[in-house]
Amino acid sequence: MKAEIIAVGTELLLGDILNTNARFIARQLAELGITLQYQTVVGDNEQRLSEALDIAFNRADIIITSGGLGPTDDDITKETAAKYFNKEMVLDERSRDRLLTYFKGRNMSPTNMKQVYMPKGAIVLDNDNGTAPGCIITDKGKTIAVLPGPPSELVPMFENGVRSYLEKQQEFTLVSKVLHLSGIGESAAAEQIRELMQKSSNPTIAPYAKTNEMVFRITARGKDKEECQALIKPVADEIYSRLGQFIYGEDDETLVSAVMKRLIEKGLTVASAESCTGGMVASRLIDYPGASAVFMTGFVTYTNESKAKFLGVSEDTLEKYGAVSPQTAEEMCIGAAERSGADIGISTTGIAGPGGGTAEKPVGLVYIGVSVKGKAVTKKLQLSGSRNKIRNAAAAAAIELLRQQIIQEDKNGKSKN
Amino acid sequence: MKAEIIAVGTELLLGDILNTNARFIARQLAELGITLQYQTVVGDNEQRLSEALDIAFNRADIIITSGGLGPTDDDITKETAAKYFNKEMVLDERSRDRLLTYFKGRNMSPTNMKQVYMPKGAIVLDNDNGTAPGCIITDKGKTIAVLPGPPSELVPMFENGVRSYLEKQQEFTLVSKVLHLSGIGESAAAEQIRELMQKSSNPTIAPYAKTNEMVFRITARGKDKEECQALIKPVADEIYSRLGQFIYGEDDETLVSAVMKRLIEKGLTVASAESCTGGMVASRLIDYPGASAVFMTGFVTYTNESKAKFLGVSEDTLEKYGAVSPQTAEEMCIGAAERSGADIGISTTGIAGPGGGTAEKPVGLVYIGVSVKGKAVTKKLQLSGSRNKIRNAAAAAAIELLRQQIIQEDKNGKSKN
Repeated sequence: MKAEIIAVGTELLLGDILNTNARFIARQLAELGITLQYQTVVGDNEQRLSEALDIAFNRADIIITSGGLGPTDDDITKETAAKYFNKEMVLDERSRDRLLTYFKGRNMSPTNMKQVYMPKGAIVLDNDNGTAPGCIITDKGKTIAVLPGPPSELVPMFENGVRSYLEKQQEFTLVSKVLHLSGIGESAAAEQIRELMQKSSNPTIAPYAKTNEMVFRITARGKDKEECQALIKPVADEIYSRLGQFIYGEDDETLVSAVMKRLIEKGLTVASAESCTGGMVASRLIDYPGASAVFMTGFVTYTNESKAKFLGVSEDTLEKYGAVSPQTAEEMCIGAAERSGADIGISTTGIAGPGGGTAEKPVGLVYIGVSVKGKAVTKKLQLSGSRNKIRNAAAAAAIELLRQQIIQEDKNGKSKN
Repeated sequence: MKAEIIAVGTELLLGDILNTNARFIARQLAELGITLQYQTVVGDNEQRLSEALDIAFNRADIIITSGGLGPTDDDITKETAAKYFNKEMVLDERSRDRLLTYFKGRNMSPTNMKQVYMPKGAIVLDNDNGTAPGCIITDKGKTIAVLPGPPSELVPMFENGVRSYLEKQQEFTLVSKVLHLSGIGESAAAEQIRELMQKSSNPTIAPYAKTNEMVFRITARGKDKEECQALIKPVADEIYSRLGQFIYGEDDETLVSAVMKRLIEKGLTVASAESCTGGMVASRLIDYPGASAVFMTGFVTYTNESKAKFLGVSEDTLEKYGAVSPQTAEEMCIGAAERSGADIGISTTGIAGPGGGTAEKPVGLVYIGVSVKGKAVTKKLQLSGSRNKIRNAAAAAAIELLRQQIIQEDKNGKSKN
């Protein structure tokens, strides 16, 4: 089975945005074992899109498009695909109801209704993150999946609606297990299992660097799910035995969900005190549904005065060691926990740049701290990149330190029993 | 003049890497006023690349390729292009000398010599950052520029060798102005200037939805920059006259940078009090370099106790109206400002879901507040989507409300004078 990707959007042709959708879909197709030989980008223009469909269907069985599903007149992907397949556009009542629910209590411009007309007979793909549903049209052995442009809408729609559709078209089954690692770089991790990666062809092991973490994806091909899982197990076990301390979770787990589950399970509450990350740590922890059970209070203490006033960092410490110091990081996490009555405190203080660096304390120098029941551990980071990159990396490192300290606390607790 | 981009590389088809080269080249072409109607990605395969060249030259005058110039057997872009133009490959002595200099004192694999054979008559483009030179072949009105794949090599080669070549081919210039709007949706904004968009062909006006904001891009074509700017001005003025209250900035401005510049300029300090957004508002404001001049303290008060203890929200209010209420939002922003000695307070409180909603207070209900010198304004939002989406939209709306209140404060101040 051969597929092609056609991304529709003048903003791609103008270089306004990166085609991250093409990369996402390409990776998904590779995992599904579907051959992808071409990707195309074309503007919001009916004639040129129609020609692109012609060319692609001459070479492939399936086309996946992204973009051009919005409410304005220049959103023409769905209509052009329908015309190509000779399907009339009909109102999809379910999508209309969903759209009206989406806009309930708000003004809806009437042009939005365009989005709930679908090619007759198409499989409609719900959009849980926006107003434009997608669809799959199949006819005479050719299939087109029409997906929205914003990655926040396309990715879940692919995962929830398109992936399982494509899997059913395949004769074999592919199963993947993803291991998430934090606190170790891609090359250092890959080094540890290099010969395992080289000798293993089914399952395959592929390392990917992600922002502030890395993953190993183990993919097996077999006649059914059980066969694939049996192939994966010994390989996953071997990776755990070599790198287990860095693996925080599998598949859909995130560093935050792994940490928050642990905190909730152990009934440990947490408070944050942030300087350079300015709310990122709190915001990430709170992104976990159910965070209210464990997250007490967060402080963004961007000035020395607020570090002293709200966290009780001593003026001596600030004067002697400075705001960017292990001493301040320690007093910040202890102060946040104490003041808000939490078991655990987590803190960050550093120089995110671009200004504010000195020879002694350069841009990218960050101290993070975690206190558990009044006992603090701090860590020095020397990060690089943009202000945003430094802040994100510091927040991720602080949450990883929190994960390590919970594990440590667990071990201490067990050794006492 | 029409151009196309063909990126060559199996790693793009597997989704291993993002096609940042296409975006870079697309942006350069847009700046040069060269029309780009299609981008293609194809693997390292001679037949398929050759077919892609055929298709592209049927539609365009110039092709720019990236990738496939390395020393290995599957690097075939230059050879395929030469065959397409019926040019034999000849040793380029200058490139050979540069290659030998590059490897001086190191072992050079003989396969590297492949890289210094060039299509006869081609313009050779030096590679100052790698071993593979690029080239430009022109024949019978068609041109191909063959560039290496690594962005660190492609970008400088384009800037040093290709850009000036293309400039010489162009008879006109393109200039764009981007207007950023916040607090209004894409369709509602487009509605306001629909007939202007329809009748305007030079400059063109294109709307784009972005996360929690939208932009209009006005693009003019003329003989020079001045002529383009003169074409853009009356159209931009007209859009300002209809939608000015929603336009927060132009070109590279962001909502946060617009707000922070105003605050810094007016010497107004700010403190935040966040419940559902849990640090996002503080984090965004602090992403602006120089935030330390105006950002005082942020509070993430996720529990009722912390709202009372750290912000002084009255227990009466919490009991009578609940944590998700305009009254709580108001006391939160006033409390944050008071406690930290800031001029302005900004607050959010709401139900981000997926749990916690009731018939009366459903998931997505958020109240935001902004107080300026003790006087608060609150706003009710009914948002939808995932937890993350609701939180992001609430943070964006709060910062937009802050922008409006600063403008209001400005007006009040002026009317008093």
